[in-house]
Amino acid sequence: MSDAAQQQADSAHWFDELRDRLCAVFEAIEDEYAAARPDEGQAGRFEREPWRREDGGGGTMALMHGRVFEKIGVNVSTVWGEFSPEFRAQIPGAADDPRFWASGISLVGHPRSPLVPAAHMNTRHVCTTKAWFGGGADLTPVFPDEADTRDFHAAFEGACAAHDPAYYPRFKAWCDEYFFLKHRNEPRGVGGIFYDDLATGDWARDFAFTRAVGEAFLRIYPRLVRRHMLRPWTDEQRQAQLVKRGRYVEFNLLYDRGTLFGLKTGGNVDAILMSLPPAVSWP
Amino acid sequence: MSDAAQQQADSAHWFDELRDRLCAVFEAIEDEYAAARPDEGQAGRFEREPWRREDGGGGTMALMHGRVFEKIGVNVSTVWGEFSPEFRAQIPGAADDPRFWASGISLVGHPRSPLVPAAHMNTRHVCTTKAWFGGGADLTPVFPDEADTRDFHAAFEGACAAHDPAYYPRFKAWCDEYFFLKHRNEPRGVGGIFYDDLATGDWARDFAFTRAVGEAFLRIYPRLVRRHMLRPWTDEQRQAQLVKRGRYVEFNLLYDRGTLFGLKTGGNVDAILMSLPPAVSWP
Repeated sequence: MSDAAQQQADSAHWFDELRDRLCAVFEAIEDEYAAARPDEGQAGRFEREPWRREDGGGGTMALMHGRVFEKIGVNVSTVWGEFSPEFRAQIPGAADDPRFWASGISLVGHPRSPLVPAAHMNTRHVCTTKAWFGGGADLTPVFPDEADTRDFHAAFEGACAAHDPAYYPRFKAWCDEYFFLKHRNEPRGVGGIFYDDLATGDWARDFAFTRAVGEAFLRIYPRLVRRHMLRPWTDEQRQAQLVKRGRYVEFNLLYDRGTLFGLKTGGNVDAILMSLPPAVSWP
Repeated sequence: MSDAAQQQADSAHWFDELRDRLCAVFEAIEDEYAAARPDEGQAGRFEREPWRREDGGGGTMALMHGRVFEKIGVNVSTVWGEFSPEFRAQIPGAADDPRFWASGISLVGHPRSPLVPAAHMNTRHVCTTKAWFGGGADLTPVFPDEADTRDFHAAFEGACAAHDPAYYPRFKAWCDEYFFLKHRNEPRGVGGIFYDDLATGDWARDFAFTRAVGEAFLRIYPRLVRRHMLRPWTDEQRQAQLVKRGRYVEFNLLYDRGTLFGLKTGGNVDAILMSLPPAVSWP
């Protein structure tokens, strides 16, 4: 197996493993909630649905509608093919050779309680004539909580610090810049980290960093969910959540590069739009 | 007053008048419903909110949350200024002189009942170094009804026929092409008409056609609403409506030129996104 093929096998395997661990912890949270609130119904369980891409590869959507998570989706995919002429110039290393391979994991969680923050995490490995990692994680509370924001940022600062102290300030600023609704002049949430085109020349190191991002998310987000999931909430708070989710939809459909790129390149619509909230209001 | 100034005054006045007549008929429908279903609460009433645009002009949003109309908005605006360099090349007659004037009316109605079709109508008059009309109307039922579709199309065929028999087939096809969700390979609704850059050389004739489009909508849409508004519906039908509305959001945020243009040019966000449905689901 060539180095490149081994690297692709390793990263694709990691994304699958991370998905399994994430699904397991979110199902455990559902169990904890169902035990605490037996009158509210059964714990949710992920349902997995594989999908194939005509031009090469495919993925698996894992989707759960539970008590804590009104909707949470984790999609892993490994796809390959050729970029269409209109995209070649935009993709690093694809101008002269349009072939690509890409693998990644994408998670969006929309909790039922307006007091539990929504979250997004995505990491990917992309190979053209170049190879790089990208991704990040960010938190979208309806009512920002200082301790949550601090702990969420600290988790990713820790993940970054172990690899390169310059990463955190740069990737945090990149996140703030990326997840911003220009038309409303407001951020989507309270940020996190965002990185792309990561190729230091040391593949193993970049892969280790990408794994660390996944591990940090796996550690911190469940902690924040458990922190708030049993708190009672009001109809007013729920209404505020439905409106806040509208901003999430606006961001994803107006600005999110992954969403727009996926839809324009004939990606799996259900997988791409799994990020959209289960109930939304534009009053 | 110059010819151009008189034309602008005339069209802006018409959009205001049409708004008043539309609001009156939708409030009358609310009254009829409240009389038939007194237990469901008071008839809705439009609330009007004027807004100003920093660079010149402004408008009035009229918004109603009623019993028949879960949300219906009618926005009129008359704005002027200069196109930014990035837009000059895209706008007819603006390449060498970026000044513009534009007036128009835009309506989107989201009925509460999944058996009453949603509808959109928009007409506008735009002046750069050129001047033209554009607009149209289209119907978005959750459960298409053959008689509704036939009657809706017939109303606009009639409006077109009185002006130019070539208009209807052309503008109907343009509507089908425009209101199409490429990523889902499905139409937004059952169509209607769509036209743009209408400048035959006879301003009065083009203005008369644009008025006829408004009149046709004023005649047909209330008729369809009354036809279905008292029919009972099920939770399943309501759920299908919430999902169908998601497609409406996807269209408006991914494809609608007016929405994207407005958001990119610093338009009034509340007025532009008044089109988005009050309750939506991506299950």
